[in-house]
Amino acid sequence: MRFLVPASTRSWVEVPVDSHFPIQNLPFGSIAREGAPRLVSRIGDLAVDLGLLAEAGLLPLWLSGAKDASDLVRWEDPLAFRSVRATLAELLESGNSRLRDDSALREQALFAIDPAAVRLPMRPGAFVDFYSGVHHASNVGRMFRPDQPPLLPNYRHIPIGYNGRASTVVVSGTDIRRPHGQTKGANDESPSFGPTQEMDFELELGYFLASGNPDGAPIPVDLAEDHMLGLTLVNDWSARDVQRWEYVPLGPFLAKSFATSVSPWIVTLDALALFRIGGMPQDPEPLPYLQQSGRTQFEMVLEVSLQTARMSQPQLIARSNMKYLYWSLAQQLAHQTSNGTRVEPGDLYATGTISGETEDSAGSMLELSWRGSRPLAMRETGEMRTFLEDGDVVTMSAYADGEGYRVGFGELRGKIVPA
Amino acid sequence: MRFLVPASTRSWVEVPVDSHFPIQNLPFGSIAREGAPRLVSRIGDLAVDLGLLAEAGLLPLWLSGAKDASDLVRWEDPLAFRSVRATLAELLESGNSRLRDDSALREQALFAIDPAAVRLPMRPGAFVDFYSGVHHASNVGRMFRPDQPPLLPNYRHIPIGYNGRASTVVVSGTDIRRPHGQTKGANDESPSFGPTQEMDFELELGYFLASGNPDGAPIPVDLAEDHMLGLTLVNDWSARDVQRWEYVPLGPFLAKSFATSVSPWIVTLDALALFRIGGMPQDPEPLPYLQQSGRTQFEMVLEVSLQTARMSQPQLIARSNMKYLYWSLAQQLAHQTSNGTRVEPGDLYATGTISGETEDSAGSMLELSWRGSRPLAMRETGEMRTFLEDGDVVTMSAYADGEGYRVGFGELRGKIVPA
Repeated sequence: MRFLVPASTRSWVEVPVDSHFPIQNLPFGSIAREGAPRLVSRIGDLAVDLGLLAEAGLLPLWLSGAKDASDLVRWEDPLAFRSVRATLAELLESGNSRLRDDSALREQALFAIDPAAVRLPMRPGAFVDFYSGVHHASNVGRMFRPDQPPLLPNYRHIPIGYNGRASTVVVSGTDIRRPHGQTKGANDESPSFGPTQEMDFELELGYFLASGNPDGAPIPVDLAEDHMLGLTLVNDWSARDVQRWEYVPLGPFLAKSFATSVSPWIVTLDALALFRIGGMPQDPEPLPYLQQSGRTQFEMVLEVSLQTARMSQPQLIARSNMKYLYWSLAQQLAHQTSNGTRVEPGDLYATGTISGETEDSAGSMLELSWRGSRPLAMRETGEMRTFLEDGDVVTMSAYADGEGYRVGFGELRGKIVPA
Repeated sequence: MRFLVPASTRSWVEVPVDSHFPIQNLPFGSIAREGAPRLVSRIGDLAVDLGLLAEAGLLPLWLSGAKDASDLVRWEDPLAFRSVRATLAELLESGNSRLRDDSALREQALFAIDPAAVRLPMRPGAFVDFYSGVHHASNVGRMFRPDQPPLLPNYRHIPIGYNGRASTVVVSGTDIRRPHGQTKGANDESPSFGPTQEMDFELELGYFLASGNPDGAPIPVDLAEDHMLGLTLVNDWSARDVQRWEYVPLGPFLAKSFATSVSPWIVTLDALALFRIGGMPQDPEPLPYLQQSGRTQFEMVLEVSLQTARMSQPQLIARSNMKYLYWSLAQQLAHQTSNGTRVEPGDLYATGTISGETEDSAGSMLELSWRGSRPLAMRETGEMRTFLEDGDVVTMSAYADGEGYRVGFGELRGKIVPA
């Protein structure tokens, strides 16, 4: 069983050269076909119906009728999804005639993707959001605590995080309604209630669990990645004015809970293995339960584009990289379960905003416009933006380049609609 | 249909005079019978198998085989559970012979409660914890910000809350393992990882939802109570040393997520209707979306007892009252959904710690021992307690007294076991 598909492998399915979905990727997702949800993978511009291939005997029978990535969860073999993907890669290799030459099955199983039919790849039972982007945390510190060191004393010891709201996780393409909330300006005598005036995005990556810890036993850092089905791109929408007024002393609540968007595609760690890099130096050394060696991080380009209602095409407003995470995904999960918290398949985690080192690599409008003091200019229309306006479309993307191919998440898109 | 059972009503089931479960209560819970979970109510010391009564034609047929309170959820009639309870009350009235004189069915349907077989009354999909006990919030402020006003500026404007961890909600009687966590003493150069040294309880009430808002529409404050199946007693276990080190800037996380205990019995608002009182004055006046009139709060005694491993019986260590909530349950739910958050049947909410005005009415060891500076003496053994030790059993109770009867939650019990 080959979990890593070599760079030289090609598929009999035609894949555009800049596609995020060559045979080296093969992510998991869910698409409605004639109204019925189906677990799919993707190659090039085509979805692959995995349940159908199972019914035809080409994939394990337990996938028959599979609806989404939750159906990949197998308690007796939490890593079974890896061999599903490996088998699929074999079926799609250019030399393999089994599916290629069965035109009836092939035409049933491979189908064009209707963006309107894309569903959440997995329905999360819980959502935890971390704060592991060190430049984002530093930027926020500089803005809100200008007379203190930018990072709080606990930052380099604890993968800081909080429990988010799972019920409002939505898939790419879902419109995001501007939320109402309580806010209080610095010069206001009392708060008021109305649509947020500081609507923001947050550029994050995330991961879904394939297996939990039924007994609540802490998950050791070196085993943590085995619990992850794969990665997803996350937009943690935020209402900054609401957040500023509500967040002491218990943290963000309604400023975040109205919506969180995820990409349709869960990209496996197998597909990303060739893009592993060492993490940034961790100083001071983490406590033993967080110590991890080897290539713990990933080199992956992250991009954010903005298109206002008046623009004819999106404008790139930020380019960052996954390598700016201070804490690795494995360290996050090991930390979260270190107190005996029970976690479950389908649980969603996000990394926190991943900003780079420069002004144009920040993962939020808060940072890009430096709290509104440095508006962004839209070249096509001359419009200025501090925070998001109704009709604005935010598109995120993430990809890594291999030798002659690109592996990525496709687009994560959300349009702001009026309150 | 009589939702309120008059004080004069008696049942043909014998109920001890100080029982929390007269015919005026009739809460919902779940108990395993020969291993199979069954939705039950309770009268006196007996459980009543509701699914069985449904199969016998005495309760609506849709309850056949009901396992727990989730089976009371009916989207086409979210308030159906109220008539189930009212019908049950009629069946149990002393003058009603239908069930009383059917000895075969009666002996099947009413059975003694085995504490070991008690299950979670409803499996929560999400858990939100508020901070609405104003004396608790003031005490914490006085301890941690002695040079500032005890309440933060937002407290009297916003029902402050945060998202908790639903997967670790457990039922009364479940042992609570002392969690590990990162802590850093004031004089420590760097943090360490180990069992918490400041294990605490928090005395709270909570509620489960019977219906949500599928479209994410805000739930108006005047309709909020219609979404509540009923109340439960909640112990929000807390590791104070972990909390102190981790909580900035995103709020409590691992200090709380290891366990939250709830009582086995969901007591309906119908059962508590006679104990309604006006809330405490809210000044300044809340914003319109939080304005509520009438008898928005409840007069209900709350008690906490502690029994160490060496003691032969528990010692009462705190007596408080539900009336010390600044924000009502309805205000909490209206606030949480005001931004469009989608909520669902089974979602669990807790009020926050409900401390009274005096030293012996505080709902946590943090306050009772004033941060450890004022240890509690155990009269029987002379032991002193600042925080909880292994082997300590915390028992909470809540009840209200009517004319000649008492309505309550029974006991919420948890024993600390070693890390």
